[in-house]
Amino acid sequence: MSSVFRVSTRLRSTVRLPAARALSTTAGMRAAEKSYFPNEPTAPSVSGTIPGPKNQAAATELDEVFDVRSLNMLTDYNQSVGNYIADLDGNKLLDVYAQIASIPVGYNNPHLQKVAASPEMACALINRPALGNFPSSDWAHILKTGALRAAPKGLDQVFTAMAGSDANETAYKAAFMYYRQLQRGGPEVEFTEEEMLSTMNNQGPGSPQLSILSFKSAFHGRLFGSLSTTRSKAIHKLDIPAFDWPQASFPQLKYPLEDHAQENAAEEQRCLAEVERLIKEFHNPVAAVMVEPIQSEGGDNHASPAFFQGLRDITKRTKVLFIVDEVQTGVGATGKFWAHDHWNLSSPPDMVTFSKKAQTAGYYFGNPALRPNKPYRQFNTWMGDPARALVYRGIIEEVERLGLVENTRITGDYLYGGLTRLSEKYPEHFQNLRGKNQGTFIAWDTPKRDQFVAKAKSFGVNIGGSGPSAIRLRPMLVFQKHHADILLEKIEQIVQVL
Amino acid sequence: MSSVFRVSTRLRSTVRLPAARALSTTAGMRAAEKSYFPNEPTAPSVSGTIPGPKNQAAATELDEVFDVRSLNMLTDYNQSVGNYIADLDGNKLLDVYAQIASIPVGYNNPHLQKVAASPEMACALINRPALGNFPSSDWAHILKTGALRAAPKGLDQVFTAMAGSDANETAYKAAFMYYRQLQRGGPEVEFTEEEMLSTMNNQGPGSPQLSILSFKSAFHGRLFGSLSTTRSKAIHKLDIPAFDWPQASFPQLKYPLEDHAQENAAEEQRCLAEVERLIKEFHNPVAAVMVEPIQSEGGDNHASPAFFQGLRDITKRTKVLFIVDEVQTGVGATGKFWAHDHWNLSSPPDMVTFSKKAQTAGYYFGNPALRPNKPYRQFNTWMGDPARALVYRGIIEEVERLGLVENTRITGDYLYGGLTRLSEKYPEHFQNLRGKNQGTFIAWDTPKRDQFVAKAKSFGVNIGGSGPSAIRLRPMLVFQKHHADILLEKIEQIVQVL
Repeated sequence: MSSVFRVSTRLRSTVRLPAARALSTTAGMRAAEKSYFPNEPTAPSVSGTIPGPKNQAAATELDEVFDVRSLNMLTDYNQSVGNYIADLDGNKLLDVYAQIASIPVGYNNPHLQKVAASPEMACALINRPALGNFPSSDWAHILKTGALRAAPKGLDQVFTAMAGSDANETAYKAAFMYYRQLQRGGPEVEFTEEEMLSTMNNQGPGSPQLSILSFKSAFHGRLFGSLSTTRSKAIHKLDIPAFDWPQASFPQLKYPLEDHAQENAAEEQRCLAEVERLIKEFHNPVAAVMVEPIQSEGGDNHASPAFFQGLRDITKRTKVLFIVDEVQTGVGATGKFWAHDHWNLSSPPDMVTFSKKAQTAGYYFGNPALRPNKPYRQFNTWMGDPARALVYRGIIEEVERLGLVENTRITGDYLYGGLTRLSEKYPEHFQNLRGKNQGTFIAWDTPKRDQFVAKAKSFGVNIGGSGPSAIRLRPMLVFQKHHADILLEKIEQIVQVL
Repeated sequence: MSSVFRVSTRLRSTVRLPAARALSTTAGMRAAEKSYFPNEPTAPSVSGTIPGPKNQAAATELDEVFDVRSLNMLTDYNQSVGNYIADLDGNKLLDVYAQIASIPVGYNNPHLQKVAASPEMACALINRPALGNFPSSDWAHILKTGALRAAPKGLDQVFTAMAGSDANETAYKAAFMYYRQLQRGGPEVEFTEEEMLSTMNNQGPGSPQLSILSFKSAFHGRLFGSLSTTRSKAIHKLDIPAFDWPQASFPQLKYPLEDHAQENAAEEQRCLAEVERLIKEFHNPVAAVMVEPIQSEGGDNHASPAFFQGLRDITKRTKVLFIVDEVQTGVGATGKFWAHDHWNLSSPPDMVTFSKKAQTAGYYFGNPALRPNKPYRQFNTWMGDPARALVYRGIIEEVERLGLVENTRITGDYLYGGLTRLSEKYPEHFQNLRGKNQGTFIAWDTPKRDQFVAKAKSFGVNIGGSGPSAIRLRPMLVFQKHHADILLEKIEQIVQVL
């Protein structure tokens, strides 16, 4: 195994073929590039219709006890390997959806197999600690060699959580406590009797009507606080009570970017002005601004570094916190470990949340004042899962060892080049191609999106959409040029039959 | 190992010694009863002060990156076994707190070790699925042989989650969607344009101002929706925005119960009348009533089966859902697998939530109409963790194989007998002893509670409090009579020095 990895590491730095050549040299590319997974299929294989008979029977059985209406496919994980996902009928699909963007280093990754078989893992699985009260003796070590080794610049603390939604909500809680602490005049100022009494009745001043500002089309999760900042689709929100919190416009950029530079800059300025106005005027005071580097569920909406620099400046000036939701963008997919590394901010975000490809969750922060002023204010029984923290550490090790962020950057550029060619050839199927220089975090709009996604399986590709009309690419970090060649080939075949 | 378990199974049914004899026959008991863990210490061992030097040094190191102000002790899980928890300085404490009531079958349980080492576990750890989209081929099987084999009577469906808070919140979401569906006239009635638009702005009618009714002193979690139903302590709630939801009084019973039967019945009737009035009159309509079988964080507050039968009847009559939060009470601790099994309800609760001793989380339900009318309404990326679902299955297997619910019932009765004797001997230290016939879910009030808990470690016992003045016992299901004898001995020693 390690020799394969050494070879591939060397190959990562070879000059990439011009995109123009790529589409016609798939075989040549495959020969030139060693796969990270020697036992990975060389191409998708599909026999018969999908879902096949075994899949359908299994879905019927599962339906007895578990809602299957969002079922995509029942999966044979033992037969899945690297970038290929297997179903029960023996089909093997190139997976560029990757469990909703949450598999980083491939199915049945050998290094993670070792992590799973380690004594530390067994101990974490069977002796699950209440981390706030009884952390294991090696918890500091696990954090320092794991989650914190990959911490965003300037943020050297972590609060661990279970998934994206509670990572975001605990960050919101930290923001609210910090905001009130500033109002009160510092951490040593005690709560008033009135606060103590009113909060037990869910009323102010103890339970204040503060807010988190998020953006139109944002997705930050589905629990009550996070859902109040989610503005992706009505179906995500209907019938669920929500807090009266403000939303600002997210820039709607026009593509290609180079043809609309001035217009797009003006659009971003308009949105920034709206943010500032809402912070100053919204009736429930804003404690924090929450933003995704690339709005993901909401349709792969990008903005420029200048926009995010503007947000950082406004939040500094107005003394509200700036939280970056890297749940979907984080851990290498954009060609940087964190997407906000693309922005060159003057000072780091106040908090950065993570989940998905980290396989665990939480928020990073740097300012010690974001630890609440008393214990048990930010607390829960488990506060994460050390078993999953060990997996995250294994992922970070694998990303470093194989140079997977660099791989994603290079492969992403290559893939973007190929898609540019396709968009020129089939303009009716490729609109607003976006994600240039954003690793493999690439998307485009197409009027026949749902048909495209549905058809893709029969061509051997597992692919997803986002927002009303986008195809979103979310391959793993082990997605290589030879996978990109296959994907481009298949995409072309699909659009030809739409 | 299995022979030990056979012996202990036989011994479970031996007639228990009268409690009166217990305190003086510890050694005799130890000889008569085989431990589930042959390698468990026979008694706690403490040397020097706690925390010792290694613990203090490790806490200082952890503090660099992780808030340690709620730290109880840094734990050496490799050295912990069965009912004994080890710290870094070699101390071994009898653990009747058990990771805030969340360890069921003992530290380093051999059966769970096998589960942790199984190929299924490795696969679940390294190929984490988005369960709503890409469940593994054996997901139905894992649920049927695991979580659902232990499902409460009448509830044959499960929605899986990550921890207690999101289990409760997803249950609330199901309740709100169900409530609005009834209002609309059925699952086939489409959302209106006005609903679709208003919900994107967090306003009604799409985001309706509905509510969940909970009880004073309740604890249901710390995310925004669950925290709005939590009424345990101000420190849990301060500075966090909350929904305007109603709270009813929870019965405050007087002890001993047999001396206050009429008074207590009247108190319960008063609370039930308050619930009914709030359901009928509260300005934000109530979609569900949420209740713990025993209020746990809030101070170990009990109520009678008649009270819960009354709640079931009121919720039926007023057509709101009845949700039982078994996060802390579930999985055997009360001498029944589910605490609400004690109630003999005329019809089951609409939903029952679980976490902690299950080591995973979710809510059970039976009525198919509680599946929302469209896919993706109750959904998130992971929807739980199959690795933890496998652990839950292993726990259920162990509970069944060893008859641990029965063990807990018998040991609980025995322990309660011993505590009754202590409360007669030291009435100033034992007030409102409660939890009779509730397995080991036993508590009492004491004016020097915090000193008691702090002192306990030096006597070799890890023990916790709840509410303002209670000691709560939360031993594991593998807590046996010989452990009870040690605990009773230590408790007596502690109160003698207070």
